[in-house]
Amino acid sequence: MPLLTRIRGPRDLDRLSLEELDQLAEEIRTFLVDAVSKTGGHLGPNLGVVELTIALHRVFESPKDKVLWDTGHQSYVHKLLTGRQDFSRLKMKGGLSGYPSQAESEHDVIENSHASTVLGWADGIAKANEILDRDAHVVAVIGDGALTGGMAWEALNNIADAKDRPLVIVVNDNERSYAPTIGGLANHLATLRTSDGYERFLARTKEVLERTPVVGKPLFDTLHGAKKGLKDFIAPQGMFEDLGLKYVGPIDGHDIEALESALARAKRFGGPVIVHCLTEKGRGYQPALQDEADRFHAVGKIHPDTGLPIATSGADWTSVFGEEMVKLGEERRDIVAITAAMLQPVGLDRFAKAFPDRVYDVGIAEQHGAVSAAGLAHAGVHPVFAVYATFLNRAFDQVLMDVALHKCGVTFVLDRAGVTGTDGASHNGMWDMSILQVVPGLRLAAPRDADQVRAQLREAVAVDDAPTVVRFSKGAVGPAVPAVGRVGGMDVLREPGTDTPDVLLVSVGALAPMCLEIAGLLERQGITTTVVDPRWVKPVDEAMAPLAERHRVVVTVEDNSRVGGVGSAIAQTLRDAGVDVPLRDFGIPPRFLDHASRAEVMAEIGLTAPDIARQVTGLVARLDGRYDGAATVESVQPARD
Amino acid sequence: MPLLTRIRGPRDLDRLSLEELDQLAEEIRTFLVDAVSKTGGHLGPNLGVVELTIALHRVFESPKDKVLWDTGHQSYVHKLLTGRQDFSRLKMKGGLSGYPSQAESEHDVIENSHASTVLGWADGIAKANEILDRDAHVVAVIGDGALTGGMAWEALNNIADAKDRPLVIVVNDNERSYAPTIGGLANHLATLRTSDGYERFLARTKEVLERTPVVGKPLFDTLHGAKKGLKDFIAPQGMFEDLGLKYVGPIDGHDIEALESALARAKRFGGPVIVHCLTEKGRGYQPALQDEADRFHAVGKIHPDTGLPIATSGADWTSVFGEEMVKLGEERRDIVAITAAMLQPVGLDRFAKAFPDRVYDVGIAEQHGAVSAAGLAHAGVHPVFAVYATFLNRAFDQVLMDVALHKCGVTFVLDRAGVTGTDGASHNGMWDMSILQVVPGLRLAAPRDADQVRAQLREAVAVDDAPTVVRFSKGAVGPAVPAVGRVGGMDVLREPGTDTPDVLLVSVGALAPMCLEIAGLLERQGITTTVVDPRWVKPVDEAMAPLAERHRVVVTVEDNSRVGGVGSAIAQTLRDAGVDVPLRDFGIPPRFLDHASRAEVMAEIGLTAPDIARQVTGLVARLDGRYDGAATVESVQPARD
Repeated sequence: MPLLTRIRGPRDLDRLSLEELDQLAEEIRTFLVDAVSKTGGHLGPNLGVVELTIALHRVFESPKDKVLWDTGHQSYVHKLLTGRQDFSRLKMKGGLSGYPSQAESEHDVIENSHASTVLGWADGIAKANEILDRDAHVVAVIGDGALTGGMAWEALNNIADAKDRPLVIVVNDNERSYAPTIGGLANHLATLRTSDGYERFLARTKEVLERTPVVGKPLFDTLHGAKKGLKDFIAPQGMFEDLGLKYVGPIDGHDIEALESALARAKRFGGPVIVHCLTEKGRGYQPALQDEADRFHAVGKIHPDTGLPIATSGADWTSVFGEEMVKLGEERRDIVAITAAMLQPVGLDRFAKAFPDRVYDVGIAEQHGAVSAAGLAHAGVHPVFAVYATFLNRAFDQVLMDVALHKCGVTFVLDRAGVTGTDGASHNGMWDMSILQVVPGLRLAAPRDADQVRAQLREAVAVDDAPTVVRFSKGAVGPAVPAVGRVGGMDVLREPGTDTPDVLLVSVGALAPMCLEIAGLLERQGITTTVVDPRWVKPVDEAMAPLAERHRVVVTVEDNSRVGGVGSAIAQTLRDAGVDVPLRDFGIPPRFLDHASRAEVMAEIGLTAPDIARQVTGLVARLDGRYDGAATVESVQPARD
Repeated sequence: MPLLTRIRGPRDLDRLSLEELDQLAEEIRTFLVDAVSKTGGHLGPNLGVVELTIALHRVFESPKDKVLWDTGHQSYVHKLLTGRQDFSRLKMKGGLSGYPSQAESEHDVIENSHASTVLGWADGIAKANEILDRDAHVVAVIGDGALTGGMAWEALNNIADAKDRPLVIVVNDNERSYAPTIGGLANHLATLRTSDGYERFLARTKEVLERTPVVGKPLFDTLHGAKKGLKDFIAPQGMFEDLGLKYVGPIDGHDIEALESALARAKRFGGPVIVHCLTEKGRGYQPALQDEADRFHAVGKIHPDTGLPIATSGADWTSVFGEEMVKLGEERRDIVAITAAMLQPVGLDRFAKAFPDRVYDVGIAEQHGAVSAAGLAHAGVHPVFAVYATFLNRAFDQVLMDVALHKCGVTFVLDRAGVTGTDGASHNGMWDMSILQVVPGLRLAAPRDADQVRAQLREAVAVDDAPTVVRFSKGAVGPAVPAVGRVGGMDVLREPGTDTPDVLLVSVGALAPMCLEIAGLLERQGITTTVVDPRWVKPVDEAMAPLAERHRVVVTVEDNSRVGGVGSAIAQTLRDAGVDVPLRDFGIPPRFLDHASRAEVMAEIGLTAPDIARQVTGLVARLDGRYDGAATVESVQPARD
């Protein structure tokens, strides 16, 4: 890597010739395949933006100018060009984040990986530049997929409002999305013979033409001028210009010279301008290009030559859900599925294959997913909206005001709930069991194993007059955890072996094995423990307060923010019932979690069996008067803020 | 009202002649002015949709066909035509809701009044019709303002995806919005000589032309084809057709015949179609037409002839905030204000007048308001985003992921927090103090009086590395409630007069007078009480646990959902500190609240001084062993779900 290793910062790009820049791009691709093969990560998107990132950093002066990335998984090249070339611990504890990180670099701004935010950020920064008379530029890179998110449109509407406020929007339009538009596109290209780099671009496009399947949404179509031929391919320009936005493009996103020319023009323009770049996801890496599904969007550890995964995991939560959905779809014609641009990651691909007319991909549009689900339910269909737990935050108002207020039977399936780890702060699904507590009528299930996923999904879709939620973890599902008894609607996972037990341990979802381990540790200290899994954590089971009253201490353990979560709800239920048995609630502390493995994160926040057992032991000892130390929760758990 | 009183349902419209329909429209206008003058309500919007509503119910067969209203305050005429003509108790307890209500009528669907949802609902219902092979139509009425909300765009993108799925979108484009577009519009009309009703429409448009000021946003401009003259006025059609949506219009929204013709064509079309109607807000009522600000959008009780308000209220929370913002704007050039299409209702009109370059109206786009605020703050400006408490739900993810994760100094001012009453379930600001609890680093103030609004706003804008929130009630602000002492950062409002007090009463925000009244009632029972106002309710003050430990009972009172609210947070703080003093938390029960006056709602949910004092008395008696009844919270408070 003779060139790459000499790049310590963006300005080191200035002295390179065009040929050297092309060589640098090749070095970067080799580096990315090599590095990401070893660690896992977002490979395809970054292979697609190599030239674009180089051009951006040549034309703009980061960090004075702000180069902003939507859904920051496409920032690996940006990292390489801004002084971060040690990818050996990518997404691991102490290593580089998989997203931009202000702690890593002054060149980074947006850290979260929730899509469609970048135009709003850019609008705010551009406004501040104006207010503070700052001579600086803002450039926002957004994928065509992210333009389906409502936030992006809200932002465009605002950006276009100030004709004199400089702001460059780069639409990173990658091949997987423009597949359906090739017909119109090819025609259109014939009218663009004067554009920079068009020749190479045209040749490449034609190659791709035959092998891409038809997918996509009208906004994509509009962007790409599909379906209506040459006449209407003026549309994308028209559409942006209707909003008062100058449009430049389309540009070959792998032609550095063309990119620099377009970006430089956009930079000089002095107002809002869109630069439409066509890029190829997975560019230059055959295994990615041959992957029709998602072009190696995100991979685990792989063999760099073949792209084949090194480790294969067993059954995971997602596929257990996905398989049961197919069975439900066969049994009930009135069940439909909704996804927000993540059909395969949420396990709905099998359902979609079996029932193509009963699955709706709404785009990166969780709000619309929830509201249209309300409409579907109101009109007699039962929708199952499968979404990552963290992304449901986007639709909180719609769950509350559209689904719950209207008593609609909609089932939300929250995948990747709890600590997910390596993707960092914004991918942990640690908020759902707190914010959903306030939603009247909503019922929330946290299945502990595969059998419970299947059973509780069935219980959920049987509810037709209220929202139901089924939330489960990321990754491999553990072995079955059998119930040894039942109290109310709750499963008893362990009996205390005495009529005067000490501890009621309330286990939430996938933490059941850990809770059984805690009970075992307590037993060695002579502390008798009942372990109960409420299954439905909202509403709190009516049997909870009477059960709690038969114990000396209640302990709750959940894989969710401990603020306002299941522990808090149980505590309130006990207060309301006048049961003043001391309660200690364990969960995720109210702070953002740095990227690390799930196990490392759990250890760091004290969510391990030994940590919890030790604290419970201290508490029981204090009640016995055997111990007067300050064995309070905060000795391990950080303070609230 | 010879015609109106004969209309018992939509089908009674079928037999009326065109002349009779015009007469009916006049009767309805007279009725609306007369009725709403007496009760208050949304007058201007309903005067604008009289003919449109008549035409909709003649062309579509409700309830088989679904006639859906965005932001249902424009549904009064719909109510009159669907069997609801007793407006005497509009928005009052037991009277008609100010919005559609499924409990009122089978003709109603969407009950909440959060904007931009109707297209999502329509998309869902249309999908269900398709799945269930139901021969029925869906028509959604949406204002041009609501199209600035991202949800509307998400929905349009999805609706356009199914070319064969019938769905009629009526864009109710009222004059206040199309003001800036008259130039291009007048030109365009000349090309539309063949359109129905164009002659009358043109004449009316010209009348309006001179007196309308220039306002609006690019989307409005696009919709109306402004600024670019005739050539580009094709744009609105172009824009919708780019999305694959057939476009019909513009139609004179006060010409029943033209409306029926357009709607009937749209109904027959068999796919998604937009009908663009131009209406006049406040139509036919001179006082409304002369009100440049908002055309009597929502009024209190007024004199029907003059439109002048009957009662004038004293200083309200909103204006206290608004005045202090002007002072802050004078002192600090780096303070800017943001509103989501509600400049005047949130009290920013004075700030906008003083600092026109430092106020941003982002449209009905709370998500963008929050994200652009993050960008502003990141770049060195301090934004104050003033928004109704209930509408902040729309931006929860952005507050968490964009503002808090990035440690941005953004101040959110939540107006209309707590029980607001007459606007019903979706306008109560009862969720903020619960869902915001989970946001790391966020600081939340609940000022108790005007002085505290001013003081805490100043404290909030001094924080530049975390989100701050200042939330206050709707309506008149009460007299000052002085502090008699200070514990940590908390104001003591009443000392217990003993070294061994019984009750620590934690008062949140505007409930301070009620809490002092509770303390007085308890005193009569011989129960000694400390009343403390934490001022900043998040994070919980460090002095809270030591203070609580000196009492026998802790009681919290908040104007917010009692699930996960301030009481829950304090309870958790006490648990973490090992302070197991019994706590009882009073707040709004976890259900949706029917419309009624604030006082009626508060009485119904047991949030009154006598109710709370009685329960606390029972609890203290139980601790004393003087009373063994079941004086637990749920004897008054409904169960959790």
